[in-house]
Amino acid sequence: MIPDNPTLSQLHARKSVRAYDLSRAVTGELKARLFDAAITAPTAGNMCLYAILDITDEGIKTKLSVLCDNQPFIAKAPVALVFLADWQRWFDGFAVAAGGGLRRPAEGDLLLAATDAVIAAQNVVVAAEALGLGSCYIGDILEQHEEIAALLNIPRYAVPVAMLCIGYPAQSQMDREKPPRFSRKYLVHENTYRAADEKALRAMFEERDPKRGFDHEVPAMAARKWNTEFMAEMNRSVKAWIGRWCE
Amino acid sequence: MIPDNPTLSQLHARKSVRAYDLSRAVTGELKARLFDAAITAPTAGNMCLYAILDITDEGIKTKLSVLCDNQPFIAKAPVALVFLADWQRWFDGFAVAAGGGLRRPAEGDLLLAATDAVIAAQNVVVAAEALGLGSCYIGDILEQHEEIAALLNIPRYAVPVAMLCIGYPAQSQMDREKPPRFSRKYLVHENTYRAADEKALRAMFEERDPKRGFDHEVPAMAARKWNTEFMAEMNRSVKAWIGRWCE
Repeated sequence: MIPDNPTLSQLHARKSVRAYDLSRAVTGELKARLFDAAITAPTAGNMCLYAILDITDEGIKTKLSVLCDNQPFIAKAPVALVFLADWQRWFDGFAVAAGGGLRRPAEGDLLLAATDAVIAAQNVVVAAEALGLGSCYIGDILEQHEEIAALLNIPRYAVPVAMLCIGYPAQSQMDREKPPRFSRKYLVHENTYRAADEKALRAMFEERDPKRGFDHEVPAMAARKWNTEFMAEMNRSVKAWIGRWCE
Repeated sequence: MIPDNPTLSQLHARKSVRAYDLSRAVTGELKARLFDAAITAPTAGNMCLYAILDITDEGIKTKLSVLCDNQPFIAKAPVALVFLADWQRWFDGFAVAAGGGLRRPAEGDLLLAATDAVIAAQNVVVAAEALGLGSCYIGDILEQHEEIAALLNIPRYAVPVAMLCIGYPAQSQMDREKPPRFSRKYLVHENTYRAADEKALRAMFEERDPKRGFDHEVPAMAARKWNTEFMAEMNRSVKAWIGRWCE
């Protein structure tokens, strides 16, 4: 038997928080703890291939709330952080050191830096939970390439891959139940990928929530996510981010 | 003052562990805790857009140690996990529900799923540390697209974006110092991206390690990382992964 473990309990307790108790400020000291949690995270070759934009300007935050698929709660978040995959600093350093003839960043460099950025972001989520703060990822930061690049002054070898809103949770959020996940057996495969046939797909949804099941959940997600303007925009925008990086 | 916090202390204590105490087994119960930490992680729309391959077959593990830029320690890791960005299951579900006329996954879907997969991986790192286990990311899992896809039976709408080796740390690893990170002021920018000129780049390296500094560190990393066959291979391979997904 493995004894109870406060860190594991916090991982399990964490759920997305989209409404904040605005009577409680997130102090500079708390924010510093969040940043330090990001910076201590694992990083490829100790290169820290990311930058964190701390959005304190209310005007920029409001513009982001519109650009990120019109989600007004973003404008109200006490803390809003954008995580960029960032080779720009290293690339500029290589250019200074080498003087010329340098290869350009490509697709693999981008994905490696994106991994670094998301690892750092998730450490912030874990630290926030440990400090009593709620957090929510904003996947929509991948959208609106041109406007986001201009608004945040993002150089060629940087790409925003994650955004977090953070604050003390409102009571409504503390009372909200964390949605159930799929069972381990569908997400963990031994050795090689195991394709799911229709029977397995149906079982996966039935086990997660018998009341909703496959016939409710899959068409609902197709309508709410897959066949939407915002996901079409996300695909257009990410293609443009990759194109700017690699062209 | 914010009181000491065991979870934050663990985030700061965690460092990469590449040598394992093989006298201590990682039990099935421990592995289940690691998987559950992954599965409870934040995920876009509660879709769990990832799969975890638990590499228990010693032959496959040894092949991975070769394909991932010849790192023999991978073959000796008690636990080796490959995290795939995975839309295949949902796409197959949409196809069952819709019957036809479905849009195909594109670049944005891939990056969103990659984010989900890395978030889950980092929760495993945090849980491992909390359970006394060491972990190490293997970025090289992005390489050798064709051989990795065949070895792990990876379907079209899945891409390996992270790999973790896990085990109890050998004494040599417990004694190793965690390498210092860049200072917060270079990694956290207020509101918009702040480009670094040569002076700022030099200061960033000097502050991290005055004994090594910019003139030692940057050419060393250019030689060890940027201008290497393995990063050329990573770029070729990731382009092929994206191409297979999007063509």
